Amino acid sequence: MKKIVIGQVGGPTSVINTTLSGFVKSTKDDHELIYIENGYEGLFYGRFIKGEEKLNKWIIDNERVPGACLGSGRFSLSERSIETCVEQLKSINADTLVVIGGNGTMKALNKIEEKSTEIGFQIQVIGLPKTVDNDLGGTDHAPGFGSAAKYVAQTTLDISRDLRSMKNFEKVRILETMGRNSGWLALASGFLRRYKEDGPHLILIPERKITKEKLIERVKEIIEHYGYAIIVVSEGVELETSGQIEKEVVNGRKILGGISSAIADLLKKELKVMVRAELMGMSQRSSSTFISEVDYKEAKEVGIYGAQCVLEGRSKIMVSLQRTKQLDYNIIKIPVDLKEVVKEGERNVPDYFIDDYEQYYEWLKPFIDINSYHYPSPIARRDNNVKEPF
Amino acid sequence: MKKIVIGQVGGPTSVINTTLSGFVKSTKDDHELIYIENGYEGLFYGRFIKGEEKLNKWIIDNERVPGACLGSGRFSLSERSIETCVEQLKSINADTLVVIGGNGTMKALNKIEEKSTEIGFQIQVIGLPKTVDNDLGGTDHAPGFGSAAKYVAQTTLDISRDLRSMKNFEKVRILETMGRNSGWLALASGFLRRYKEDGPHLILIPERKITKEKLIERVKEIIEHYGYAIIVVSEGVELETSGQIEKEVVNGRKILGGISSAIADLLKKELKVMVRAELMGMSQRSSSTFISEVDYKEAKEVGIYGAQCVLEGRSKIMVSLQRTKQLDYNIIKIPVDLKEVVKEGERNVPDYFIDDYEQYYEWLKPFIDINSYHYPSPIARRDNNVKEPF
Repeated sequence: MKKIVIGQVGGPTSVINTTLSGFVKSTKDDHELIYIENGYEGLFYGRFIKGEEKLNKWIIDNERVPGACLGSGRFSLSERSIETCVEQLKSINADTLVVIGGNGTMKALNKIEEKSTEIGFQIQVIGLPKTVDNDLGGTDHAPGFGSAAKYVAQTTLDISRDLRSMKNFEKVRILETMGRNSGWLALASGFLRRYKEDGPHLILIPERKITKEKLIERVKEIIEHYGYAIIVVSEGVELETSGQIEKEVVNGRKILGGISSAIADLLKKELKVMVRAELMGMSQRSSSTFISEVDYKEAKEVGIYGAQCVLEGRSKIMVSLQRTKQLDYNIIKIPVDLKEVVKEGERNVPDYFIDDYEQYYEWLKPFIDINSYHYPSPIARRDNNVKEPF
Repeated sequence: MKKIVIGQVGGPTSVINTTLSGFVKSTKDDHELIYIENGYEGLFYGRFIKGEEKLNKWIIDNERVPGACLGSGRFSLSERSIETCVEQLKSINADTLVVIGGNGTMKALNKIEEKSTEIGFQIQVIGLPKTVDNDLGGTDHAPGFGSAAKYVAQTTLDISRDLRSMKNFEKVRILETMGRNSGWLALASGFLRRYKEDGPHLILIPERKITKEKLIERVKEIIEHYGYAIIVVSEGVELETSGQIEKEVVNGRKILGGISSAIADLLKKELKVMVRAELMGMSQRSSSTFISEVDYKEAKEVGIYGAQCVLEGRSKIMVSLQRTKQLDYNIIKIPVDLKEVVKEGERNVPDYFIDDYEQYYEWLKPFIDINSYHYPSPIARRDNNVKEPF
């Protein structure tokens, strides 16, 4: 029986509790579970809670509920506070530390492991992946991303049809997605686009810079061609000469957001048309309705596999998801070296996806399980030689 | 066989095409259908399209697609342009004019009817209700509202759980709903709240003014009590001394929006905590995923009943939905005098709903068909004498 300490760190996803639940279900009967409140902040302050049966059951009951059950947070760890975290773990004689998180989480986890080794405190360290941004290295994708991508894809198509019918009144909508310094989510906005009349007509991602002049020119062309424009922009995009838009810095972390408003202001001024900016917002990471079944299944499997790694005595690893084939979607779980994950840093969208969206959408397909009904082509009437009403 | 001219006016809803489809299905075989492009603007310019079989079928295929199939718009009609509209209808020998719309639409429709009578041009005039704001008089509620309310209720609960788990990082989220000068949608945000720990902790609506001082005090209390605050605000809310926040005026219509940001700025300054403002945005009126089945059914019935009114020779009316009982939800369609609808003006939320949310939620229940899973209580652990993790 091991004493396993587990926490959730960083922005929640709609399936972050699914992973926790999978892990808890697989370990609660044979091990002692200790929960950390509010991620690394709780670890630093030693806010541990005993995993009693009722609490464990409550966590399992929350497996489809957004927000992190244990409380999460963004607490940046200095070298000194890494030491404190290790001391806290040592003081309760923890055998294992499991953390569910993204990039920053894995980096800190690696440091905690190093510090433990340094002081001769033996602890098993396992990371479980989670991020809507999908910018985590060492894994094909991370749980949470698929559901967020599904939300972004459907919302963009819906809002596009809405604007299309109002184009005599307003011309441009700028929809801002999450993603930090990567364009995975923003690019997902085009997944359900089957007709070129539908948006998104332009997707801006941090991986490809665009000048203000070029942007204005492209939007002008789009409006001339379709009568309206749906532009999707990733929060981390910098317009050449303007830089990323930071709202504020909290706990040393830049809060991005606002590039859509900056672009809206620019286009209003230059094109003299009505432009609306809108954040896709917190629903991307918390919509229970848009949970992707594949994402849900994998999030759970990551938790269950994490439990298996505990048993097998694996340490200094992160559980990763790997595709076994290109076309038939089949995923296996593999432990990857935590150091390798950290070394890879923020994972951007590869060029071959950016240069050929269709290739990206083929890759994205398993996550977006929307088949409930079809959007008829907006140009069906033109095909039939009937004058198009709008 | 009548020559029926039909159009869609104002902001679309996710079921605006359901009503159109219901009407078209019921009339296409026995009447000549003429579609107006882009609402009153198209009527003014005489942009009519013949309802050929393929076009009719396309409209029916779009019954669950957001955005107005015929194109909509916000075109304000002067006295002179009302005359032009009547001349356009006369020039094509229209027997019937059917318009799907809200408040402003019905007002203009009434004027078109009066002008026709004045010049001795006999035309049958029928309004079909549609608005997410639910501020249309003469009807228990309007199609489109139920789906928007469902979106607002679920989104608020999801975002509340997300923030709850991040409350060590950010304290307040201000979610802004549509509604213009009424609070129907904003109040719907509390429908799924079963535990007082969940948001919304405060709902601001135009029907009840609040001073800046009172607002700051309330939010402070909420944060002290729950550790975080979810505030929902209707776009039309005025903070005493600040007035409604207008983004701009387009075609004589105020574009509301921005009160959430104004409140966020105020709270940041006064409470020195991290506050995020977010618009619920266009998804409220265009989310195909959140279409409420009751709303969908009624939207279609309104179209079918509109067709029946054409046959029965009714004119100067709007189709309304009326409840026959208080508890068992049963709706009948009744034609109401268009003049009465206009006279009622914008319909606010009655005091008895504002003073007792539970009474409002009982009324709202039929529209929000979310039973797929339960959110366990966020305080289950406290009930069980287990220390609460966050």
